[in-house]
Amino acid sequence: MLEKTTRMNYLYDFYYSLLTPKQQSYMSLYYLDDYSLGEIAEEYDVSRQAVYDNIKRTEAMLEEYEEKLLLFQKFQERSRLIRHVKELLKEEHPSKQEMLEMVTELEKLD
Amino acid sequence: MLEKTTRMNYLYDFYYSLLTPKQQSYMSLYYLDDYSLGEIAEEYDVSRQAVYDNIKRTEAMLEEYEEKLLLFQKFQERSRLIRHVKELLKEEHPSKQEMLEMVTELEKLD
Repeated sequence: MLEKTTRMNYLYDFYYSLLTPKQQSYMSLYYLDDYSLGEIAEEYDVSRQAVYDNIKRTEAMLEEYEEKLLLFQKFQERSRLIRHVKELLKEEHPSKQEMLEMVTELEKLD
Repeated sequence: MLEKTTRMNYLYDFYYSLLTPKQQSYMSLYYLDDYSLGEIAEEYDVSRQAVYDNIKRTEAMLEEYEEKLLLFQKFQERSRLIRHVKELLKEEHPSKQEMLEMVTELEKLD
């Protein structure tokens, strides 16, 4: 569940601008501010089931956007490459060849 | 017009997966394969006006996606930084400090 929460937080971060204002509110209360379904239902004066359905649909939409655009996946790959370059740059005499390879891989991700 | 064509080619490249199959077909014939509106209309047995309207709507959608997700803008900024790092790596003794700055900027773009 923690893993799913982390993933949803990331997907929300990448794709929230494609959601409706209501979807944004429910998702950010549920995933970012850790409200319960009941608390969101009370806040918006709707049923707990309505909140649940909306959030489930939004989660599916976020996964669909990720399947199409891969922003989270590319972000992870880029982060790994950037970490690697930063590690190299800490060395006394970093290998230029190795850095060039990392940077070329970064380029290909776009 | 050339500038608009280039921009649309890029936006299409970033966001085509969010379009319907018909939008994808019209756009790729018009922008990638350089078909005229009349030729597309004939190919799909619809009016030239229908093709024109569909393409105009799709262009507006692509601009809307770009406004929300900035994938093309970020791509351009990343390309500039990557080019810069590659230039540095051609030097005999590239500045590690300068490379670290470029890489940190790259990181912030995500």
